[in-house]
Amino acid sequence: MGLDIDLKTEDLVKKLLVGDITALPKLISLVEKGSPDVPAVLDLIHPHTGNAQRIGITGPPGAGKSTLVESITTNLRQDGITVGVLVVDPSSPFSGGAILGDRVRMRDHYLDQGVFIRSIATRGATGGLSVLVPRALKLLDAAGFDIILLETAGVGQTDLDVMDVVDTVAVVIVPEAGDAIQVMKAGLLEIADIFVVNKSDRSGAKRMANDLRLNVHLGSKNDWWEPPVLLTQGHRNVGIDELVSSLRQHRDTLEKTNHLSKIRQLQRRKEFEVSVREEITNRLIEATDSSPKIIELIRKIDSDEIDPIVGAHNFLDDEGILSP
Amino acid sequence: MGLDIDLKTEDLVKKLLVGDITALPKLISLVEKGSPDVPAVLDLIHPHTGNAQRIGITGPPGAGKSTLVESITTNLRQDGITVGVLVVDPSSPFSGGAILGDRVRMRDHYLDQGVFIRSIATRGATGGLSVLVPRALKLLDAAGFDIILLETAGVGQTDLDVMDVVDTVAVVIVPEAGDAIQVMKAGLLEIADIFVVNKSDRSGAKRMANDLRLNVHLGSKNDWWEPPVLLTQGHRNVGIDELVSSLRQHRDTLEKTNHLSKIRQLQRRKEFEVSVREEITNRLIEATDSSPKIIELIRKIDSDEIDPIVGAHNFLDDEGILSP
Repeated sequence: MGLDIDLKTEDLVKKLLVGDITALPKLISLVEKGSPDVPAVLDLIHPHTGNAQRIGITGPPGAGKSTLVESITTNLRQDGITVGVLVVDPSSPFSGGAILGDRVRMRDHYLDQGVFIRSIATRGATGGLSVLVPRALKLLDAAGFDIILLETAGVGQTDLDVMDVVDTVAVVIVPEAGDAIQVMKAGLLEIADIFVVNKSDRSGAKRMANDLRLNVHLGSKNDWWEPPVLLTQGHRNVGIDELVSSLRQHRDTLEKTNHLSKIRQLQRRKEFEVSVREEITNRLIEATDSSPKIIELIRKIDSDEIDPIVGAHNFLDDEGILSP
Repeated sequence: MGLDIDLKTEDLVKKLLVGDITALPKLISLVEKGSPDVPAVLDLIHPHTGNAQRIGITGPPGAGKSTLVESITTNLRQDGITVGVLVVDPSSPFSGGAILGDRVRMRDHYLDQGVFIRSIATRGATGGLSVLVPRALKLLDAAGFDIILLETAGVGQTDLDVMDVVDTVAVVIVPEAGDAIQVMKAGLLEIADIFVVNKSDRSGAKRMANDLRLNVHLGSKNDWWEPPVLLTQGHRNVGIDELVSSLRQHRDTLEKTNHLSKIRQLQRRKEFEVSVREEITNRLIEATDSSPKIIELIRKIDSDEIDPIVGAHNFLDDEGILSP
């Protein structure tokens, strides 16, 4: 296969596979940076992945997602279940820049080896979330975490993409009039496996939950699972048992109905496509300095002799790539 | 070159190039659908593009962008300048679904042949805004519009992508406390060539403008243009003359300092990369049914024998594409 790997990176992978989570931050950084070692890393960890339940926690900013993630983590830890948390930060161009924030956030679990939390900066990455997150998830999976929580920022396309990388999607909202509309406009109704009306001590929570229950059918993803609508108060630990049990139930249903393998198969196909796109871009950028053919093509595009899309067709035809 | 084109499509292009804008909606629809005719269309119109000034109008929802776009259009029409408007709708999966909305919006210009408005649905498109919008812009450009206004929805990544397809970016905000922070968090400070504090009759407008003026240096894109901060009231036509004159001034400065050609050259390179990614994905999807090699590779990915990123490397190596 010829997948090259740095000796230091190989050591990190060995550490990871024996459950030494000190290797995780460095490996995640390699993924964020798009290191050339990444394919080899994923090749090495591949036999050790696929076990963790992958849960996405999404919803508008201010819905209390981080507090909820913390409550879920505490709840799972009481049963001895290990939890990895990835926080997707689409607005930050800085890798690992939120490490201090992460530590502050999960104070209760700071010394707990059964909990790991890390922010991922997706801004600027080719393909963003859909390239980086599946790889980071697999690293946590290979490290042996039972459950991985993926928390997204709740703005724009990111939240729709989350569906493509997890088994279960929980959409969190708060009982404010505009919020439900926001959720539907953003297409979150269609991706939710579980709805969480958080901060349910606020007025209107029950009415919102009822409204959602009536509308859940409209956007339901499939006919074998009806998304429950749960009321929680993340900061007071209210409703967390029910939420955790719903998350488990969704996973059980996925397995029993044979949908887990189907979902993941579709996700792997998407990952393949995304990886092809990322890799051809990397190779193209490198060839811009070295291949005479590419240099001439780029010259034509730079000088506006041909439209870039025509250049793209010529390039793929010249290279004989899957000519139509 | 072997770029195929349907005879009907070729007729539409001929109409477009003599300024018959009835051809525009159909051609934009072809672009939205990713029709196989698109490369040939862009090849045919290529010699007739590059003349229009491309202006992006972005900012948070509720900032009054559409009213402002209408006021700018009215102002430009008084000088006989023709205006094409593209409204990017990242949340809508429906092509051309906002046509009625478009007509309602630009009532004043409904019968004016010098104005054209169209929404573009980018959700679900491979590459989204960065694939579709440059192509739609070029269609309007080839139709002869002097100025093209690109209005984005003001949520997430879309607004940052807008920078890659226009000459001038105007960021519109309203004088509310959270808005300026939102703008900075979203990275809009860095992409603005012109700041517009709209609804400037609201309290706090002047203070916000002053705050922005003080901070403009921090995020400034370059050293040859200092983004002005303008106060407007789109619905009352206040400050529109100044805004239009700033937009013109930015274009003039771009040309005088030779930055227009540099910016567009960079944009064409991005377009090329994006087009390569789009086209290889299309070819890959087609080959999934026909090429024995690809079928075997997909089988390995489907059955989880190899990691998708490893599959991507194998594929590109097998095809001998720009092997590193």
